[in-house]
Amino acid sequence: MPDDSRSIDDVAAMMARIGREARAAARPLALAPDTAKTAALRAMAVALRARAAAILAANAEDVAAAGDLTPAFRDRLTLTPARVEAMADGVDAIAGLPDPVGRVLAQWTRPNGLAFERVATPLGVVGVIFESRPNVCADAAALCLKAGNAAILRGGSESLRTCAVIAEALRDGLRAGGLPEAALQVVPTRDRAAVGAMLAGLDGNLDVIVPRGGRSLVARVQEEARVPVFAHLDGLVHTYVHGPADLAMAKTLVVNAKMRRTGVCGATETLLVDRALAATHLAPLVTALLEAGCEVRGDAAAEAVDVRVKPATEADWSTEYLDAIIAVKLVDGLDEAIDHIEHWGSHHTDAIVTDDAAAAARFLAEVDSAIVLHNASTQFADGGEFGFGGEIGIATGRMHARGPVGVEQLCSFKYRVRGQGTVRP
Amino acid sequence: MPDDSRSIDDVAAMMARIGREARAAARPLALAPDTAKTAALRAMAVALRARAAAILAANAEDVAAAGDLTPAFRDRLTLTPARVEAMADGVDAIAGLPDPVGRVLAQWTRPNGLAFERVATPLGVVGVIFESRPNVCADAAALCLKAGNAAILRGGSESLRTCAVIAEALRDGLRAGGLPEAALQVVPTRDRAAVGAMLAGLDGNLDVIVPRGGRSLVARVQEEARVPVFAHLDGLVHTYVHGPADLAMAKTLVVNAKMRRTGVCGATETLLVDRALAATHLAPLVTALLEAGCEVRGDAAAEAVDVRVKPATEADWSTEYLDAIIAVKLVDGLDEAIDHIEHWGSHHTDAIVTDDAAAAARFLAEVDSAIVLHNASTQFADGGEFGFGGEIGIATGRMHARGPVGVEQLCSFKYRVRGQGTVRP
Repeated sequence: MPDDSRSIDDVAAMMARIGREARAAARPLALAPDTAKTAALRAMAVALRARAAAILAANAEDVAAAGDLTPAFRDRLTLTPARVEAMADGVDAIAGLPDPVGRVLAQWTRPNGLAFERVATPLGVVGVIFESRPNVCADAAALCLKAGNAAILRGGSESLRTCAVIAEALRDGLRAGGLPEAALQVVPTRDRAAVGAMLAGLDGNLDVIVPRGGRSLVARVQEEARVPVFAHLDGLVHTYVHGPADLAMAKTLVVNAKMRRTGVCGATETLLVDRALAATHLAPLVTALLEAGCEVRGDAAAEAVDVRVKPATEADWSTEYLDAIIAVKLVDGLDEAIDHIEHWGSHHTDAIVTDDAAAAARFLAEVDSAIVLHNASTQFADGGEFGFGGEIGIATGRMHARGPVGVEQLCSFKYRVRGQGTVRP
Repeated sequence: MPDDSRSIDDVAAMMARIGREARAAARPLALAPDTAKTAALRAMAVALRARAAAILAANAEDVAAAGDLTPAFRDRLTLTPARVEAMADGVDAIAGLPDPVGRVLAQWTRPNGLAFERVATPLGVVGVIFESRPNVCADAAALCLKAGNAAILRGGSESLRTCAVIAEALRDGLRAGGLPEAALQVVPTRDRAAVGAMLAGLDGNLDVIVPRGGRSLVARVQEEARVPVFAHLDGLVHTYVHGPADLAMAKTLVVNAKMRRTGVCGATETLLVDRALAATHLAPLVTALLEAGCEVRGDAAAEAVDVRVKPATEADWSTEYLDAIIAVKLVDGLDEAIDHIEHWGSHHTDAIVTDDAAAAARFLAEVDSAIVLHNASTQFADGGEFGFGGEIGIATGRMHARGPVGVEQLCSFKYRVRGQGTVRP
């Protein structure tokens, strides 16, 4: 069981050491061939399966020690044999991705004969601060490793025992690939000063922080971090049904976008319906949602559809329910829809449902969100669904990474320039 | 003459307003077609030429008011008719670049039929804090505009009058293109609190800061900014001559890399020579540098070449001279060269001169600098030489932009996803 009785000074010294060790390991990792990284990841998956019993035992201790938990929290914290297997499968899937490092992103030759290449390089040291889900430990470590980055992982204090055993399995894998174990640092203390040290950047030894957890964690990291952050604070996601739109398709999309899983950041929270469709589409859409078990909070037009519809207040346009609740509003055409989304949205994911190609093109161009969709469910906001083979999170910032952050977005780049004794006049 | 007698409260309110206005203008600018941006840029160039006399008069006032200046500072501050013309030419060149916004950076289709596109979008609001060179005002404004970004420019207090007139010309151009004048904000005060407000991020209305000026400005911005920064603190650039290397080519490259212009960040500051070339290349290289008027500070081997060579101390390996001075050192092969560069360098620009393709490949892979060159002068570290049509600066950070920052690096991206009523299972 990891020690959590250190003094603040001890924690500061420990975090400084973790930063230095990660930085030192980042260089050999950056230069490691893909064969070594793949071998390490395959061995990690094997070790996770081999240590499944130990992982589950540690997890049972964590769950027992956590005491009174909400059912949702307990579900996030608890591992099962199937979840450990899924964790190992995820690491295997990342092992099978093409190496993102060394990809030639662009190449060109200048009139003086200089040949330029922009090639992907690792970012350096990635810090991940996560809450209750222990699987993030394996996912994040695997994504960072594939992209040639050292990782510093700080899990929730409730999952400390589980993560310690998972980390042993991951280090088994690093050894098997001949890679430095220091490339994976798991912060072994419950002391919150460890988070503060990461937010301060570990003396320049941390290049980016990815918070994975609830809104208050993300808000604190975005507020206090002195290093770049890949994150989204909210996922206030809209689906806008614009005329002409096939009603059957619109119903299917809206119900999927809201109800497939209500707790994910890509779940639609607000349905906008074009006023031109008020007579034809509004009632069937609202009814379909109610029948799917969704609470509907509507403007006057939506309220008039069904006695079960509750009146929406202004707060509903800015609430990410993460639950089986949706806000519904009529809008006067594309401009009002875009204005509503720009005003109330969180620049995460927004969709238009329409058969009008010109309206779709305008929506995709003018809605300033990381992900904009046409005739597709907002629940596709996920790195796996993008084909990234996994994601460390979804970012709504505009710098470096935006949308799902996969191995390619965990890379930087550099320029290779080749001449023939070429001098600048 | 701009007002510089405001109270701190006035400055805070003014900067907050500048941030809000820039943010509001960023959206129409982001959606502006390239025809409008190009028209605005062409009109800016015309207006700069038309206002040349007023710009020069304001500049003469700035120079007179600045009082005692070093010759280098006076040179940077002073505009001439030719420099105004060059400024207009630069804006015209940026007008002619392809639109960086809307480029499809990647596209793919998933097995479920979803079609993905990653497309370039503007970053938002770019802040530029610059010192004495008034031409940065026009260059930076033009680059930001081409990339669809609003810009907030804060020039050195010595060039305030000059920049005010240049800004009038630039706003003429925005009007001519039908674009919001608020997209270009020039901070009209000498008060340093304006810089503090920008470093604090203008209430979230500033997305990135680019400092252009001396080391102390860059250091302050990197230290204090609460928003991302594109910059380099140092350009401690190396050229490494590795055997076998053609001596004539090596001499030409080294003299150009050091002496073409000694004050630019891509100028070589340290020459590393492989010990295998001590007998054949060291003396001719040192002699060529001395004959070109360069002061040489060498290790024992270099000192033995010529009485004019001064002994190097450890400080020389970490000094960016920005002058006709070079440090010279023998190294034991590629590994020691790379280690020296990683230890003392600034991850900006480094070059190898060699006929050995394998050594060159290792150097280009293992030296962790924004720009790595083989058989080419380090003085090519420049966005214009890269074919970017201009640069707002050179970055040594690993996030978002690295190396010369041109219009493409002043962009973010988003994902456009098109389905056919596609739902997520």
